[in-house]
Amino acid sequence: MDPKHLRFMDLAGQISQEKMRAGEGGPFGAIIVRDDKIIGQGWNQVTSQCDPSAHAEIVAIRNACSALGAFSLERANIYTSCEPCPMCLAAIWWARLESVYYANTRQDAARIGFDDAEIYREVGRNLADRQIPMIRCESRVAALAFQDWTKKEDKIPY
Amino acid sequence: MDPKHLRFMDLAGQISQEKMRAGEGGPFGAIIVRDDKIIGQGWNQVTSQCDPSAHAEIVAIRNACSALGAFSLERANIYTSCEPCPMCLAAIWWARLESVYYANTRQDAARIGFDDAEIYREVGRNLADRQIPMIRCESRVAALAFQDWTKKEDKIPY
Repeated sequence: MDPKHLRFMDLAGQISQEKMRAGEGGPFGAIIVRDDKIIGQGWNQVTSQCDPSAHAEIVAIRNACSALGAFSLERANIYTSCEPCPMCLAAIWWARLESVYYANTRQDAARIGFDDAEIYREVGRNLADRQIPMIRCESRVAALAFQDWTKKEDKIPY
Repeated sequence: MDPKHLRFMDLAGQISQEKMRAGEGGPFGAIIVRDDKIIGQGWNQVTSQCDPSAHAEIVAIRNACSALGAFSLERANIYTSCEPCPMCLAAIWWARLESVYYANTRQDAARIGFDDAEIYREVGRNLADRQIPMIRCESRVAALAFQDWTKKEDKIPY
């Protein structure tokens, strides 16, 4: 492996350590790199920002997108100090990142109190079998909004 | 079903329609309700905010948490105009929401250009089989940050 990958990863690790020590949240850091340049970084801010979605990877994606003025990160890689949870993995997909480099594993995370095994299972369950009840409630206005989208002429697909 | 659920859902649908028409993003809206009171709302802002994580559900969770000054939404429900994608489902899990009410289905969403079937498959794959390559890159500093967390005396678990 090209040593540059470890340099980027060590930086993600340093961010995770510094921000955790500063009380920002859990020990997770991430950076986003395109053409060997860092275009965004993030760290866990769940408790300090009161935002359960503020995982390192999502914060890094937001920051990189904001810096670029784009909602897509094609040709960029993410270096994350820990394997992403299902939320972050799906965010990485939506952001169209190319590759994920990770250091600590989900098993390492589970050992220090961050276990996402049940979330992996939940995502794979049929709706009727979910732990969080999924209740269908049809709405004519919600259906109409979908129809409107198909007719909208100036829409920006993503 | 108690008619209040349809009232909340129609409101989520109205938000989805209004904000989509205003050019904020895709036709998705969500509200969060606790004790029959709306404590947060959100709509898709992916393209307008340059944020691929700004789905309606995540924006609603952030807004509700910010309003409450809490990183957990226990005893609250989310009403979303469309079945959540895997990113939002995992965010709902992390936020500890109680139930999910949804109107349009993932099949409805796929028909208007928002297909998340491949993301469900991706989350379920072994790391070696992922479409987005997952590359292990061990880092001593990332591992140390995990050890530091276990020793941190003033940590806030979540």
